[in-house]
Formats: sequence, structure tokens, C-alpha cells
Amino acid sequence: MCAPSVIEKVRQRISRRDLLKSTGVAAAGALAAGCQSTTKAKAAPATEPISFTQVVDLSHTLHPDFPAWFVPGVPHEGRFLPPAIVEVERVMKFEEVRLNLNKVSYWEHVGTHMDAPSHFSEGSTVEKIPAEDLVLPLAVIDIKAKAARDPLALLTLEDVKAWESKHGHIPERACLAMNSGWAHHVNTPKFKSLNADGKHQQPAFHIDAIEFIKEERNVVSIAVDTFSFDNLHSPESDVHYAWLGDERWGIEIVNNLDDVPAMGSTIVVGQPKIQGGSGGPNRVMALI
Amino acid sequence: MCAPSVIEKVRQRISRRDLLKSTGVAAAGALAAGCQSTTKAKAAPATEPISFTQVVDLSHTLHPDFPAWFVPGVPHEGRFLPPAIVEVERVMKFEEVRLNLNKVSYWEHVGTHMDAPSHFSEGSTVEKIPAEDLVLPLAVIDIKAKAARDPLALLTLEDVKAWESKHGHIPERACLAMNSGWAHHVNTPKFKSLNADGKHQQPAFHIDAIEFIKEERNVVSIAVDTFSFDNLHSPESDVHYAWLGDERWGIEIVNNLDDVPAMGSTIVVGQPKIQGGSGGPNRVMALI
Repeated sequence: MCAPSVIEKVRQRISRRDLLKSTGVAAAGALAAGCQSTTKAKAAPATEPISFTQVVDLSHTLHPDFPAWFVPGVPHEGRFLPPAIVEVERVMKFEEVRLNLNKVSYWEHVGTHMDAPSHFSEGSTVEKIPAEDLVLPLAVIDIKAKAARDPLALLTLEDVKAWESKHGHIPERACLAMNSGWAHHVNTPKFKSLNADGKHQQPAFHIDAIEFIKEERNVVSIAVDTFSFDNLHSPESDVHYAWLGDERWGIEIVNNLDDVPAMGSTIVVGQPKIQGGSGGPNRVMALI
Repeated sequence: MCAPSVIEKVRQRISRRDLLKSTGVAAAGALAAGCQSTTKAKAAPATEPISFTQVVDLSHTLHPDFPAWFVPGVPHEGRFLPPAIVEVERVMKFEEVRLNLNKVSYWEHVGTHMDAPSHFSEGSTVEKIPAEDLVLPLAVIDIKAKAARDPLALLTLEDVKAWESKHGHIPERACLAMNSGWAHHVNTPKFKSLNADGKHQQPAFHIDAIEFIKEERNVVSIAVDTFSFDNLHSPESDVHYAWLGDERWGIEIVNNLDDVPAMGSTIVVGQPKIQGGSGGPNRVMALI
């Protein structure tokens, strides 16, 4: 998703925290080990085998009318103008040359997609995220009830703690997903829920929940079924800066979270390995 | 990869075969069941759980100098002119607006990528392939020894039978991969192995092996570590028409097949779900 202009305070806060962290044992240990992981999550311990019998598709189909946080062809906050959600131009046609081939173009953060650390920092681009970080235990927190009442509902620290009281700690090296029910609205105006000022309204993570999972749990990725980790009503993008700016990544506009359990499945993030990417459309699946 | 002009005979042969097949019990059964699968492979039986402890990256990083079956900016067989392998234009810069975002463009069949049925037929595009068909038992046939001696080496029916004499039948609903060793050459001239006429030379599938796995085994996908399922020395693209034209799909330019066993791992094909795609860059991984 897109973001702010008034974020200097957030940036400064992150820089100070990173400076402190870089003197810590965990960071030094990771460097000493020559760890390739781009996340700050701790390395995987020797694990029990992961088993599954079922595959669930967590990606939406990306098409020219798919909703985005911008309107194609219209300047966004005076800053830029993506001409389209995605362009698929059939440059070779089976009926003419007996094969089909498209030219595909997109501005990266459309459809079900990754936000790499570099989207909101000078951190890693997509190709630097190792495959072993793309297959993770999936924890799903359901906030559908309050999101149905309030399009600005937030997944709070209390929601995390309530989830943990039922399921135990968020698993080591997890992907933590918010299920707000927004995936059901993806091809309706409800997905944007514009307010009187034309601003998007959508459920998102509360910054306190993010700080908790950063500091107290070993979470590799976050995921949301909305446009953005941040409540778009606020211009500060606190969650993006706090999470991506800490050399972490996440996924936005995830589908079908109703079809996976709160705990016990595995998420697979099929992120094309395009050099320099700050994120982009991908195929996300759950193994159950 | 790209293809022929003299393929009418192949097309006719495929059409006749499809006509015959459409009267068969398997095809009728699939239709009657309203099966969503885009492949002609039989549906998955109730399976034992699949287990893994390790993830191997089977995708190469896609960058502007990545080799392709065309030369950017140069007409290919007089027919078309892709301007670049991939273009990643940073349209928003962190140092200016405190976030990075790229415009990404490519002609689909570059890097590690899928060929959907529609690439060489009027069949299904990528978004029609269901997620359960993207997670498959992986069988790897190693032809590195003969490929090292001959860049036009083919994976033959005899190679399939020799593999089966060691490992048993190719598993139900498998992805069958050719490991020719070509992944090691990807950033060297050896990957194209141009002959005196400037034609690519590379290992590929023999059409007889393809006909065997179509008719006698239940194979969902094929995969190669080269540009193409077909030996590019021949202009007929028999394998593409026989396989993709039969409403099947595959993956080209796969990486790291040396790091997976001949039998027993699971391939995951993270194919972005872009409406109308004839294939395109993806993230492929193996679960071991």
C-alpha cells in the first residue's frame, strides 16, 4: 500500500531502536553465523516434520478491475499516477502464430502481494528473502465480528493475547495473519469503504500488537486480507515503518483465511524472485 | 520458449488424438464430475499425509541480463521483438518519498517460469490452474552425463524406464523434471550453446517420453532446467504442442535440481494468479 509524508518521527524512532538492537546478542549471533535470512526472526530450530493432506489457495485472481489503494490514472496524494492495476497485452496470438504470449506490466503492490522490507526502508528486496523463510507455520487471528461493525477495527495486543490464551504462544517463525472478513468484499465497494472525505476505511493491525510480536515473539511475516497492514485512515503508516523498517516482510490482500484453521497449517509464499523488487503479486497457499 | 511455423502436422495429430480421447471414459468421468482441474491427469486419490523438514529454492533470480531464447531488441525469426528480459523501474524512491515501488514489465516466458496450456493452445490460462495442482510429488530424471557430452541430448523413453526400474512407477499426479545440469550454466554462454548457425542447443524431452507419460502415467506437470521442453534445434516444438495442447502445463529454467532426491520430495509452484496469463515468472520450491 501507499503511505505518508509526515513520518519523520516514526523513522527516527525506528532508527534509534535498530541502533540499540544492533548491539544485542541476537543480532551479533546472526551476523557471526553468516545467516542469510533477511528477517530479524531467530533461525529455525531443528524441527519436527511438517505434514499436510490439503492445499488451500490464499491468492485472489489479479485482473484490471481488481481494487487497489489508488485509482488508475488519478494522482494519489499529488505524488504519482499508476496508469493501471495490471496490464496483460497479448503480443503473440495463437490464432495468428499458433502460440500465445503476453506482455505483463504492473506497479508492484497490487493483488495478493508481498511487501518486502525495501518497500518502506532501504532494506532487502524480494530476491534476498530465502526460500526457507517463505514456508512458515500460519497463525490466524479472526477479528471478523468487530470488523463487521467497524471498518476501522484494529487487531490489537488484546486480540493477540486472547488468541494465545486459546492456542498457546504464536508458533516459532510464524506468519501471523489477520482475518477481518474483507476478502469477501474484494469485488465490491465495501473493500474500500470510502468515508465522506473519500478516504479508505479498512481493518488493520494496531501498532501495539506489532511491537509485541516483534519484541516478544519470533514472527517472520505478517499477513492481512485488506489493502494494508496499516489503517489507511491514518497517514502515518506506523505498522509499515515499524515492521518493514525492521528488515521484516508481509503479505497483503490474502484470500480464503476462513478455510484455514486458527493454528496448525503452513503458509507457502510463492514470491517471484525478481531482482530489486520491493514486493509484488505472488501465489500464496496454505498446506493443512 | 518460442516456436515454429511448420507445425500444422503436429496440430492435426493432436486434434485427432484429442478427439479420440474425448470419447474415452476418463475424459467423460472428469466432465461428469465437474472437475475444475485444468489438467487431464486423473484426480488425486485420498492421500497419505505429505511430510517435509526442508525447503529448497528451485527458482533462479530474474534480472535484466538473465538468458532468454530471444535477444532483447532483436527480432526473433522475423516475428517479434521483446525489448528486454525484465524491466524493473523504481518509480517511487525511498530517498525521495520514504518508500520504494517499482513498475515491473516482462514478456511472460522469462526466468524460472510456467508454460500454461494457453501458451501453445487455446487452452487454460494460469489463473485457471487450481492450487491443489500446484503442489505435486516430484520425480527427477538425471541426464547430466549424456548432456555433458552432447548439448542436444534428449530425455528418452528409455531414460524414463531406467528411472522406473530403480524407483518404481512415476508417482500419481507427479511433476516429472529433467535434470540436465544446465542450471549450472545459466549465467554463461554454455546455457545457449549456440551452434555455427546461431541456433540454441540444449537438452530437452524426447517426444516419445512425453507420449508415454501422457498415455501410461498420471503426470500433471513437466519441468526442465533449460529454456524449453523442446530441443530448440528442431523448429517443430513437438513437446510443447503435445503437452500444452493436451491441456497440461509445465515449468522451464528450474534451478537446484541437484539438491532434491530423484524421488520423494514435493514441488510447490508459486504461480502468480494473473488473469489471462499464458505463463510467467514464478517461485518454485521443493519440500523434502
